[in-house]
Amino acid sequence: MPKISQTGKVMPASPIRKLVPYSEQAKKNGVKVYHLNIGQPDIHTPKQALAVLKEYKGEVVEYCHSAGFESYRRALAKQYASIGINVNYNQIMVTFGGSEGLIYVLMSTMDPDDEMIVPEPYYTNYNSFATMAGVKIVPIQSSFESGFALPPISEFEKKITPKTRAILISNPNNPTGYLYSKEELLQIRDIALKYDLYIIADEVYRDFCYDGTTHTSVMEIEGLDQNAILIDSTSKRYSECGIRVGFVVTKNQEVLDTLMKFAQARLSPPYFGQLVGMASIDTPESYFQEVRAEYVKRRNCLVNGLNKIPGVSCPMPKGAFYTIARLPIDDCEIFCKWMLETFRYENQTVMMAPAAGFYATEGLGKNEVRLAYVNNCEYLEKALKCLEEGLKAYPGNTYSK
Amino acid sequence: MPKISQTGKVMPASPIRKLVPYSEQAKKNGVKVYHLNIGQPDIHTPKQALAVLKEYKGEVVEYCHSAGFESYRRALAKQYASIGINVNYNQIMVTFGGSEGLIYVLMSTMDPDDEMIVPEPYYTNYNSFATMAGVKIVPIQSSFESGFALPPISEFEKKITPKTRAILISNPNNPTGYLYSKEELLQIRDIALKYDLYIIADEVYRDFCYDGTTHTSVMEIEGLDQNAILIDSTSKRYSECGIRVGFVVTKNQEVLDTLMKFAQARLSPPYFGQLVGMASIDTPESYFQEVRAEYVKRRNCLVNGLNKIPGVSCPMPKGAFYTIARLPIDDCEIFCKWMLETFRYENQTVMMAPAAGFYATEGLGKNEVRLAYVNNCEYLEKALKCLEEGLKAYPGNTYSK
Repeated sequence: MPKISQTGKVMPASPIRKLVPYSEQAKKNGVKVYHLNIGQPDIHTPKQALAVLKEYKGEVVEYCHSAGFESYRRALAKQYASIGINVNYNQIMVTFGGSEGLIYVLMSTMDPDDEMIVPEPYYTNYNSFATMAGVKIVPIQSSFESGFALPPISEFEKKITPKTRAILISNPNNPTGYLYSKEELLQIRDIALKYDLYIIADEVYRDFCYDGTTHTSVMEIEGLDQNAILIDSTSKRYSECGIRVGFVVTKNQEVLDTLMKFAQARLSPPYFGQLVGMASIDTPESYFQEVRAEYVKRRNCLVNGLNKIPGVSCPMPKGAFYTIARLPIDDCEIFCKWMLETFRYENQTVMMAPAAGFYATEGLGKNEVRLAYVNNCEYLEKALKCLEEGLKAYPGNTYSK
Repeated sequence: MPKISQTGKVMPASPIRKLVPYSEQAKKNGVKVYHLNIGQPDIHTPKQALAVLKEYKGEVVEYCHSAGFESYRRALAKQYASIGINVNYNQIMVTFGGSEGLIYVLMSTMDPDDEMIVPEPYYTNYNSFATMAGVKIVPIQSSFESGFALPPISEFEKKITPKTRAILISNPNNPTGYLYSKEELLQIRDIALKYDLYIIADEVYRDFCYDGTTHTSVMEIEGLDQNAILIDSTSKRYSECGIRVGFVVTKNQEVLDTLMKFAQARLSPPYFGQLVGMASIDTPESYFQEVRAEYVKRRNCLVNGLNKIPGVSCPMPKGAFYTIARLPIDDCEIFCKWMLETFRYENQTVMMAPAAGFYATEGLGKNEVRLAYVNNCEYLEKALKCLEEGLKAYPGNTYSK
């Protein structure tokens, strides 16, 4: 029997994946499972975005330009300009979600065994993309106590080697919800320029900033034209994860030319996804105001609720729709499994993502879970009640009762 | 300024790409350019496939299963069964076109520097996919004189080294139109089993077989359960290239498990593409009969027309919608450029793909072009007339007049 590749063997599986069979089994047994583990929002996709499908009159669904419809990219350039990002349409490439964009960015900018610094905890699929490109992720720890602020620049400098090629940040952050300030971005700029590094910024949650905060894009920071690469996506912005439309944006022409070779090899981004994405640009600001108000309500409900549970603590995130909570538990992986397999409260339970999977450093995050607040407050309150009862019942609870 | 990766530098650009500026310039000057260079059919997408978009009633376009809608995969399994391929729905993975499927197959089955034997000429993007996976393509020559039949098994054996991991075929073949017989597939089977190799078969043109021939899939060949991997796509079958829906099919569970890790990292294939793809399964056989009849007409028109031009020869392909023609020209790259840049016949010219780009071996295919017959006979006849006049006028014509 022919062998599997080494890359295939070391490709990480999702940390949540291990828990899925237990959740499936619970559901089969009639148990109601509250999903705080995933980032699939229940928010409606803008109506006018979907209406465009009904108006489609084409007769042959052709390939489109490998970088995406020119009309779409021109409209995107205008949209970026309106938020202070001045790029032309040729500096935007449409990809299959942010994921494909990031894969090709890593392959275009780094050689196998090159290193990329990433503050941890970070989005677990970065590990998969790095594995595909043969790139080594070098984590630096952002601390729970600081609410997951940018680690001090001295920590970055300690990690820089001749193989360091890039810094990757997610802003607002998945999984922490932390929103990097302009000052923090300027610190990253200084280090990128000093050591000639790319800054790859995953800003797919940029529309989800709360409490009067505003998002600063890496593309707005002066002096980074050759260094900054933005990963963007329609998925969360318009709650249209399934259309699979993301973007790479950069002013670095050599990177753009290289990305195009990857894009041309796979021919074309998705036609109908782009139609929906293009129609989404006209989404009125009132949509986002409503959505943000709803997320703030949900966040407050979840985070305040968590902090009321004895032994649980959780920072108040300023963006995205995730948070990392610390539980009075030595090993949340075992706890999360136990919640699905064993614990029932009025025939209900909660599924959470053990946070250790979001850290690269062995041993970190074992007493933490990532929770998503993509469901309404009623749902979240029921989930919180289950969690509270679960913690009470769990034999391994380390909080002195 | 940060550097580009080595992979990015060696990623091949499309051989046709170099000609695009000349074609664009000609069009700007009001010249009619006949495109025999591309595989974008003018055939209508089945109406019922597009109708499904108008019926879409969802409110949130969610991620779907990383391997594709289960309902879609179950329907595909039935469709495969109807053509003699017995697989269950879990042995099918939906990908972003055949391209993404092939990229992940290469990454799952081969390590960097491993070798894959591919009969040349072959689809040029195989070079790009191999570059992404770090895999080395080892070409073996199929000959113009044999109409591009499978090279003798002895030629394969000469190329096998301890690093050989797979044989990749395209059947029916792009760019040659050659349809491999069952006997040829059995020969490949023997060598795959003898040397423990994967056979990766790109069968995206399987519905385009002419003159009463029938297609044999690698999945139908006995004894290959652990070795055969099918790359498939909706793009050409239903003339819906833009939906970006392809498939990987294999019975090798280890390969499937590995592919799933790649698929999960990029979350989900496209929602609306899958809706259209699923509705396409019901396309009546009459659609294919009409399409095939049309392609046979076009093929005959093109190939017979080519063979009437002094000094030109072209085998009669049995499948797909491409053919390789030999011209009385030393260097078709220069000739194709000259046709676009300089030659005009009644203010018209022809764009063709120089075949050298489809060969890996330096120097092969220089007197050949790949032509696609994706336009109607009237179009093809005008293109043929231009080509004939172009050859007459070209100073470098080596045919003794």
